[in-house]
Amino acid sequence: MSDDQFAGRRAIVARGLAAHKIDALLVTAPPNVRYLSGFTGDNGNLLIHAGGALLFTDPRFAIQAKQEAGCRIRISKGPLAADVLGTVRTLGLRRIGYDPAHTTCAYAEALKAKLPLRSSLEPVAGWIEELRMIKSAAEVELIRRSVETNSRAFEQAVSRFRAGMKELDLAAEVEYRMRRLGAEKPSFETIVAAGRRSALPHAQPTAAKIERGNLVIVDMGAFENGYASDMTRMLFVGTPPARVKRTYRAVLEAQLAAITAVHPGARTAAVDGAARQVLRKHGLDRFFVHSTGHGLGLEIHEPPRVGKRDKSRLQAGMAITIEPGVYLEDWGGIRIEDTVVVTETGCRILTPTPKELRVV
Amino acid sequence: MSDDQFAGRRAIVARGLAAHKIDALLVTAPPNVRYLSGFTGDNGNLLIHAGGALLFTDPRFAIQAKQEAGCRIRISKGPLAADVLGTVRTLGLRRIGYDPAHTTCAYAEALKAKLPLRSSLEPVAGWIEELRMIKSAAEVELIRRSVETNSRAFEQAVSRFRAGMKELDLAAEVEYRMRRLGAEKPSFETIVAAGRRSALPHAQPTAAKIERGNLVIVDMGAFENGYASDMTRMLFVGTPPARVKRTYRAVLEAQLAAITAVHPGARTAAVDGAARQVLRKHGLDRFFVHSTGHGLGLEIHEPPRVGKRDKSRLQAGMAITIEPGVYLEDWGGIRIEDTVVVTETGCRILTPTPKELRVV
Repeated sequence: MSDDQFAGRRAIVARGLAAHKIDALLVTAPPNVRYLSGFTGDNGNLLIHAGGALLFTDPRFAIQAKQEAGCRIRISKGPLAADVLGTVRTLGLRRIGYDPAHTTCAYAEALKAKLPLRSSLEPVAGWIEELRMIKSAAEVELIRRSVETNSRAFEQAVSRFRAGMKELDLAAEVEYRMRRLGAEKPSFETIVAAGRRSALPHAQPTAAKIERGNLVIVDMGAFENGYASDMTRMLFVGTPPARVKRTYRAVLEAQLAAITAVHPGARTAAVDGAARQVLRKHGLDRFFVHSTGHGLGLEIHEPPRVGKRDKSRLQAGMAITIEPGVYLEDWGGIRIEDTVVVTETGCRILTPTPKELRVV
Repeated sequence: MSDDQFAGRRAIVARGLAAHKIDALLVTAPPNVRYLSGFTGDNGNLLIHAGGALLFTDPRFAIQAKQEAGCRIRISKGPLAADVLGTVRTLGLRRIGYDPAHTTCAYAEALKAKLPLRSSLEPVAGWIEELRMIKSAAEVELIRRSVETNSRAFEQAVSRFRAGMKELDLAAEVEYRMRRLGAEKPSFETIVAAGRRSALPHAQPTAAKIERGNLVIVDMGAFENGYASDMTRMLFVGTPPARVKRTYRAVLEAQLAAITAVHPGARTAAVDGAARQVLRKHGLDRFFVHSTGHGLGLEIHEPPRVGKRDKSRLQAGMAITIEPGVYLEDWGGIRIEDTVVVTETGCRILTPTPKELRVV
């Protein structure tokens, strides 16, 4: 990303201030600060007003901010709030927008307590997330690279799998491989869960050994150049019994149905419904206890959600996961997940990894 | 940790409700939820009242909550807030404590919008963090194990170092080794920064190669059984020049002075001052741009802070880092960090790794 791109995004925000009835937007969530400035440190506030933008951070990030951020920088010795308020006062800014979902009550109170007399904090929810939902071609390419790295790491890790390996060690192998391939870090805690533990949708890997006859869920993602990938694949150690194969086919059918439902203009609830309907046909829908997917980009979970009750419509440029799954408490779980991008005409699957149940 | 321990901690909170002038405490921060219930999922609310405790989470964590949490569990189909409010209503709870530092404005608004007529939200800041500051013997042992794993991972990674290796690859090696040794994950993003980049106190590793003549900062920590470790060591590739040796000795002297200042009753600012005074003597204090240390436990950063302006006093059972550093923008940075525990009589250094500049 070039400085120009960040400046372009800030210009969009600056132009939108009036429509949001604010004089400035105070951006506090790190992914939003990064999206609008390039700064990757985890303590930053960005104040965008009609006349420009100012990034506030602390001395630990002074050198880094200078290297990364294309806008003006203020290094705060104490809490950032004090310097933000100083700038609000100096520039005479009245209505300061902030996002209630990214601001703690404590931080809002700290700001309100010392706001200049005629200034006020105005809630502006989800604006930057809305901008971030639609990825540019450059962003799609960054997500594709992250997905590619993630899939290569999966292949390398699986090729090192031997029966008797611990869940933790396979997870360590997955994360090591993604880093060696250029990722900064996993985009979430890698899930490797075998046997009955695969029925925990958010299992953390344990010291349990992965043995013959185990169904294994591997849910993994990388951050590369700041952009997330996300994929789930299932392994089976040995020869899968009929019930595993049958259940796997049902989930795969559901996943393909959801992908087929992805196109611009489609309601995300309809995509979720497509997966759910297939599972209902197989008598498995009550074991599908989460949403079909979620947006991803600078965060592993970002709008839109692709769930039963979600009202948003897909638009070209959105990057989302499609990941139906079923979880049977005393048996195991099966989930299959790809990262896809909504295109002008439908959907592009970014994940290159084959979707057969992987027998190891 | 046994169920008894969590029940004991909840009993302390239940007994303290009256003193905080509340009927119930709503715990939202994941480390606090874990501390009081054993539940490790990242979407949970714990409501503690005089008559008991109730954990709210979503269906993804249903099985896990049953396995981990010793208290009653409610699985929420929608936002947790709705079910929390339902319980507040059913139990007739009036004054609900919440921590403004762990509650977003959006979540507080969602609660307030539907609170029963005679109920109210009451800010109670930092109570659970205050309890968590003093570690039990069992917790100190968990931190010690995490520190031990971290130090072993450092040795294993350094033994694999070769000149020409990328920062990213050494960081990957560090994290892989800690996981293979039993850690769940790094407790923060591993810092490996060589040459001038070592002057970035919070550098992220890059594809830059670590070459002969480079000073390299390695700041790393693990989470093991939920507990954090944190250590910084310096490598030098080849023969360190006089200025590196001299600066290193000054930082080490500062670090030892700070450790010497650790004892129960000491002000954290005095510990910070001990390090700062040594650096001043060497004309380096203006390059020491952060605090001397921080508490750690279920989080990598928790109270107390050990900085210039901090007023707290050390107490036996506190686990803190001691990590002075100096950062010279066009030259490089040097930081040395151990994890220590305040004992009845002084201080126990948990970190076993030698503190000489490591020549590789």
